[in-house]
Amino acid sequence: MKKAVVLHSGGLDSTTLLHYAKSEGYEVYAISFEYGQRHDKELDVAKKAAQIADVKDHKLVTLNLNAWGGSALTDSDIDVPDYNPDEDTIPVTYVPARNMVFLSIAASYAEVIGAQDIFIGVSEVDYSGYVDCRESFIKAMEAAINQGTVAAVENNKPFKIHAPFQYMTKSEEIILGTKLGVDYGNTWSCYNGEDEACGTCDSCKLRLKAFKESGIKDPVKYKHL
Amino acid sequence: MKKAVVLHSGGLDSTTLLHYAKSEGYEVYAISFEYGQRHDKELDVAKKAAQIADVKDHKLVTLNLNAWGGSALTDSDIDVPDYNPDEDTIPVTYVPARNMVFLSIAASYAEVIGAQDIFIGVSEVDYSGYVDCRESFIKAMEAAINQGTVAAVENNKPFKIHAPFQYMTKSEEIILGTKLGVDYGNTWSCYNGEDEACGTCDSCKLRLKAFKESGIKDPVKYKHL
Repeated sequence: MKKAVVLHSGGLDSTTLLHYAKSEGYEVYAISFEYGQRHDKELDVAKKAAQIADVKDHKLVTLNLNAWGGSALTDSDIDVPDYNPDEDTIPVTYVPARNMVFLSIAASYAEVIGAQDIFIGVSEVDYSGYVDCRESFIKAMEAAINQGTVAAVENNKPFKIHAPFQYMTKSEEIILGTKLGVDYGNTWSCYNGEDEACGTCDSCKLRLKAFKESGIKDPVKYKHL
Repeated sequence: MKKAVVLHSGGLDSTTLLHYAKSEGYEVYAISFEYGQRHDKELDVAKKAAQIADVKDHKLVTLNLNAWGGSALTDSDIDVPDYNPDEDTIPVTYVPARNMVFLSIAASYAEVIGAQDIFIGVSEVDYSGYVDCRESFIKAMEAAINQGTVAAVENNKPFKIHAPFQYMTKSEEIILGTKLGVDYGNTWSCYNGEDEACGTCDSCKLRLKAFKESGIKDPVKYKHL
């Protein structure tokens, strides 16, 4: 059985991805990151989601990307703003080079366990502000991994980064995930880590819009709706 | 003054690099990693070396790359071997994707502080087994950083990875560093973290050979010489 390392945050995209990779016949090795984000809520959800998806293994990597802040998600001095539809600049929730850091560490894990396939749940459609969700970045990163690992360079076992949701909308993901049996009640999108999702941050707004478009009811409870 | 992020382990190469980047007119932001390596000795040395070089700032990033082992440097079940001149396979001290992980995190730091220059002390000459020391990897990684960061993609501030020792031997580095005032007594190369360097591991052997070739006396004390 082919092994795959799957980046997994406990969010809607990556939980769908766990189930998608399994449906494609992979033995799934999930990897999550505690990188100084504001709350651990998504990691608790991630652990449970990995159990529900019955993955082969689930690693938690801790690293202090908050050592230099620069993002509302890792810097307590920057507030997480409410959604602003007129905002066309880079959101303050952008974490510099986050997907690059995550993919690098995933490559290290993949090399050790002998996996050649790495899955990431990025989409270009909903997140135009996040440059590290673009296909051109994913391809450049794949090329770097294939120059920087013994498996690829010496042992002729190149890596492939799979981003199956690259050109899917979030509502299409929800429809796909529902077919694959994803429990969206155990996914967390809210930038705030309270008992109920806030319903007002960027991430909640995108999620609510996507569920509405999909025609499927979001099982998560919101404080403000 | 231009800012540079310099990868800094406390070793001979990266300590030379701190002084080199300063001599090139950069304001130096050093970054070191506690990634589950066997000993903290090199981090103590790194802190002191950063002070000696009078860097602007020095960040320590902790991450548990030892969550999956795969290297004698991060996995206590794998012994650090003595030097074997007939060995032409990948050394067990190879840490999968290490330089990629380090460069990704350095890019995140650089983006936040507004630096466009990242320095790494790799050389292709002495370390043929480490694929992530090759220029082709460094170039591929630079391309990935320039696709995966807002600074490069949106703000027209591309990054450059400088690897000034790429084609220098370690003895040439020592001669250069001595001219730049590097205190090699405060650098640590030994894979073992005892009070005195072992003198028998790969890294000690390479260092001793390089000092001998340079004609400069190594101020570090060795247990076995």
